[in-house]
Amino acid sequence: MTIEQTTGMDLPQPGRMQTLREAAADGTRVIIHGAVHAIRDMGGFSFVLLRIPEGIVQCTLAGVVPEELAEECCIEADGTVHTELRAPGGLEIALDAVRVLSQPAAPVPVPINKWKTGLSLETELVLRPVTLRHAKARAIFRLQAEIVRAFRDFLQSQSFVEVHTPKIVAASAEGGANVFRLDYFGRKAFLAQSPQFYKQTMVGVYERVFEVGPVFRAEKHNTVRHLNEYVSLDFEMGYLRDFTDLCEMETAMLRFVFDRLRDGCADDLKTVGVSLPSIDRIPMVRFDEAKRAASEAYGRKIRDPFDLDPEEEVLIGRYYKEKTGSDFVFVTHYPSKKRPFYAMDDPADPRYTLSFDLLFRGMEITTGGQRIHSYAEQVEKMKAKHLDPEDFAGYLMIHKHGMPPHGGLGIGLERLCMKLFDLPNVRLASLFPRDQSRLEP
Amino acid sequence: MTIEQTTGMDLPQPGRMQTLREAAADGTRVIIHGAVHAIRDMGGFSFVLLRIPEGIVQCTLAGVVPEELAEECCIEADGTVHTELRAPGGLEIALDAVRVLSQPAAPVPVPINKWKTGLSLETELVLRPVTLRHAKARAIFRLQAEIVRAFRDFLQSQSFVEVHTPKIVAASAEGGANVFRLDYFGRKAFLAQSPQFYKQTMVGVYERVFEVGPVFRAEKHNTVRHLNEYVSLDFEMGYLRDFTDLCEMETAMLRFVFDRLRDGCADDLKTVGVSLPSIDRIPMVRFDEAKRAASEAYGRKIRDPFDLDPEEEVLIGRYYKEKTGSDFVFVTHYPSKKRPFYAMDDPADPRYTLSFDLLFRGMEITTGGQRIHSYAEQVEKMKAKHLDPEDFAGYLMIHKHGMPPHGGLGIGLERLCMKLFDLPNVRLASLFPRDQSRLEP
Repeated sequence: MTIEQTTGMDLPQPGRMQTLREAAADGTRVIIHGAVHAIRDMGGFSFVLLRIPEGIVQCTLAGVVPEELAEECCIEADGTVHTELRAPGGLEIALDAVRVLSQPAAPVPVPINKWKTGLSLETELVLRPVTLRHAKARAIFRLQAEIVRAFRDFLQSQSFVEVHTPKIVAASAEGGANVFRLDYFGRKAFLAQSPQFYKQTMVGVYERVFEVGPVFRAEKHNTVRHLNEYVSLDFEMGYLRDFTDLCEMETAMLRFVFDRLRDGCADDLKTVGVSLPSIDRIPMVRFDEAKRAASEAYGRKIRDPFDLDPEEEVLIGRYYKEKTGSDFVFVTHYPSKKRPFYAMDDPADPRYTLSFDLLFRGMEITTGGQRIHSYAEQVEKMKAKHLDPEDFAGYLMIHKHGMPPHGGLGIGLERLCMKLFDLPNVRLASLFPRDQSRLEP
Repeated sequence: MTIEQTTGMDLPQPGRMQTLREAAADGTRVIIHGAVHAIRDMGGFSFVLLRIPEGIVQCTLAGVVPEELAEECCIEADGTVHTELRAPGGLEIALDAVRVLSQPAAPVPVPINKWKTGLSLETELVLRPVTLRHAKARAIFRLQAEIVRAFRDFLQSQSFVEVHTPKIVAASAEGGANVFRLDYFGRKAFLAQSPQFYKQTMVGVYERVFEVGPVFRAEKHNTVRHLNEYVSLDFEMGYLRDFTDLCEMETAMLRFVFDRLRDGCADDLKTVGVSLPSIDRIPMVRFDEAKRAASEAYGRKIRDPFDLDPEEEVLIGRYYKEKTGSDFVFVTHYPSKKRPFYAMDDPADPRYTLSFDLLFRGMEITTGGQRIHSYAEQVEKMKAKHLDPEDFAGYLMIHKHGMPPHGGLGIGLERLCMKLFDLPNVRLASLFPRDQSRLEP
C-alpha cells in the first residue's frame, strides 16, 4: 500500500502583469495559461489575445491558426515575452507552442471581447456567466472585492471582531411585509433582513463587531436601485458618546477604503472610467432641515414630512454638493415613526430618532443609528409600536442583562458600488442579481 | 442653518491589554470602559473585574461599593494602572471615579463570570446572548474570526478574488431532499446548499475565486456534527494539472492559518486550552484503500462499500494518525454514485471520481474535487443521473462557452473549529446554531 503525501505548494500560478512586465524587460521565455479572448488573423501571423485574471495579454502566433484554437479555448503556451508599448500592459508574447486544454462547445453569442458590447441590460444579465468575462465587469467586481477587503482591514485595525450570524431567523428585525418566509422543519421562519439583533447581541460580547453577509428583502420594488438579495456591510459598536461617533467611524472607514482603491487599483479604476471622490469632511444635516433646504432651493413641494423619496434624496445630495462640495451627506434625526422599534428616540424631541442615513451622490447607501439599550425603554417602545415583547424574548435578553450605549450601521455594498462606478443600475453591481423577476442565472 | 461636519476619528477606543500593560509600567492614569464582570467585596475595598474585549482587567475600588454598581453594569472609570503580577494580564487599576453608563434590569441567571459554569449544552445555547460573554466562548469566536481572516489573506496572496454569490437560487447543486424551499414572488426557490455553480462560473472570470458565506442544508440529522446553517469556506481554481493541486493548496492554506493562530493568538489558544496540530505533509489515500485498511486494522466489517459512515471516518483518522503522525488525511477517489453530477470521473476507472474529503481528527471537514469542464461530458453525466439539462441551462452556459480544467473545495468552518478546539458539539462552534429544533436565539 502506498500513501502519497501533499507536500506544500508547487502549482502553476496565474499570469500576473507585473511578473510579465519584469520578464519582458529581459526578453525571457515564459509559460503562460489563460483563455483565448480574441483571435485576429493578420495574414501570415495572428494576434491571440489571452485573458488572464488581471487583464489581456497580446500574443502573436506565426503561420496559420490551428483549427482547434478558437475563442474561449483555454490554453497553455510557451513563448518569449518582450516589451511592446502599443500592446495592453506594454508587452507582447511571441508564442512558439500552444497546448489547447479545453474547447468551448459553441461560440459566445455576444461580443464580450469588444469594448462596446452594445448589449441591453436584460441580455447582459441573462448571459451573466459569460458577460462577466468582459473587461469592465471584471474590473468592477475586483474593485468590489477590494472595497470589502479594505472595509474589513479598517475595522480590524479599530478592534472590531468579525462575526457570522444566522440568516434563517424566527423573528424579523425590520418588520413589515418585506420578509421572505420559509418552512423550517414545520416551523415558520424568515430570511434575515439584516443581522440587526445579532450584531447588537455581539456588542455585549466584543464591544465592536462587524459582518459582511447577504441580507434578504422581499420588497416589491422594481427600480434601478433595489435588489431583493444584497451584500450588507454591517458594523456595531458600544460605548458611544452619541450617535455621531458612528458617522465619524464611517467617514474614517470610507476614507481608508478610497485611499486603498486609489493606491492599489489604478488600472481597474481606469478601466471602469471613474475617479474617486475625496473625503475630507462629510456634512451632517437634520432630516427636517435637509428636506426644507432642498424644497426651498429647487421649488419642490414636501409631500411626506416623515420620509424621503428617491427624488428628494437626489435634490438633497445636489444641494449639499453645491453648498459644500461633498459627494456625501449625513441626514440625521429621522422621524421615529419611520424607524424600527430598536431606534433610540432623541430625548430632546422624541418624534425624531438618533439615527441617520448616508446619502452618496443623491442615494441612500447607509442606514444607521443609536439603539435602545435600556430594557424598560425597549419593552415600552415595542408596546407603543404594537409589538409583543414575548416575540422578542431572545433579543431582549441582552437588554435585560446589561448593554452599553451602542449603535451601528449597514451599508449596501452594491449601492455603494453603483454610485462609485457610475453604473445606471444596481443590478450591474451584483454578480448574479436577484429581483422580482430574476432568480437565475 | 447649521451644517456640522464629521471630521475623522476621535473616538473612545476599547481597552487594549497591550496599551494597559505599557501604561502600568509607568503607573499612568487611565480612563477605561467596560462591563462589570464580577464584584468581590473584600471588606474595606472591592475587586471590580472589568470585562474589556480582550479579557478581564482587575480593578480595585476603595470603600463601600455604590448601590448602583452591579454585575453587567457598563461603566466608564478613571484610575491609576500599575503592575500586579497576580492579576489577569499582570496589571491592576486602582479606580477613583466610576460613572455608570447603563444598568441591567436583572442579574444574569447563570454564572458566566466563573470559569466552570456547570451549564448543560441546552442551557448554554438557550442563553447564548449572555453565555457568549464567558471567557472561553469569547476566545473561541475570536479565534474563529482569525481563522477566516487568515483563510482570506492566504488566498488573496495566491491571486484568488473574493466573490459574493446569491443564496436564493432556482436550482439545487447538491440535489436531494436536503434543501430548504421558499416562495420567491410566487416562484419556487431554494436556499443555496453551496456556492457550487457560481464559484465554478467565476473561475471562467477570474481563474481563482473564494467565498466565505452561509450555506443551508435541510438535513434531518440530529448529531453532534450537523448544523442546518453553517459558514462555508469555499475556493475554486482553474488550470489544475490534476485534482491533487487542490489538496496542495488546502495544505498550504491550513499551514498558513495555523501559523497565524500560533503567532498571534497565544492568549486565546491558552484560554481554550488547545495546542495546534503541526502540518508538514498530509497523507493521501484512496477511498477504497482507506476503508480496507481501517477495516483490517480494527476488525470492523465494511457495510457500505460506497460511503464512509462517521465511525469509519474516526477509524481511518486513527489509523493514519498512528501510521503517519498526521491529524489530517485526504481520502481520495470517492465513488461516483455518491458524488454530485458535476464531479469528474476518474478516466482510469469511472466508478470513482477525482474528488476527496479531508478528514481532521476522524471527521470530514472538507469536500472537494475536480469538476467536469466539457459541455458534452456534463450533459451526458446529468442524463445518466436522471437530471434534465434544461433545468441547469444557466449553469451549463459556462461549459458550453469554455471553461478551463478546474476544481475546488468547501470547508465547514464550525466543524474545523470543533475539532481544532476539541469541542464536544459543533453547536459550540456556532454563535447562534441552527438545528432541527433550534431557530432561536
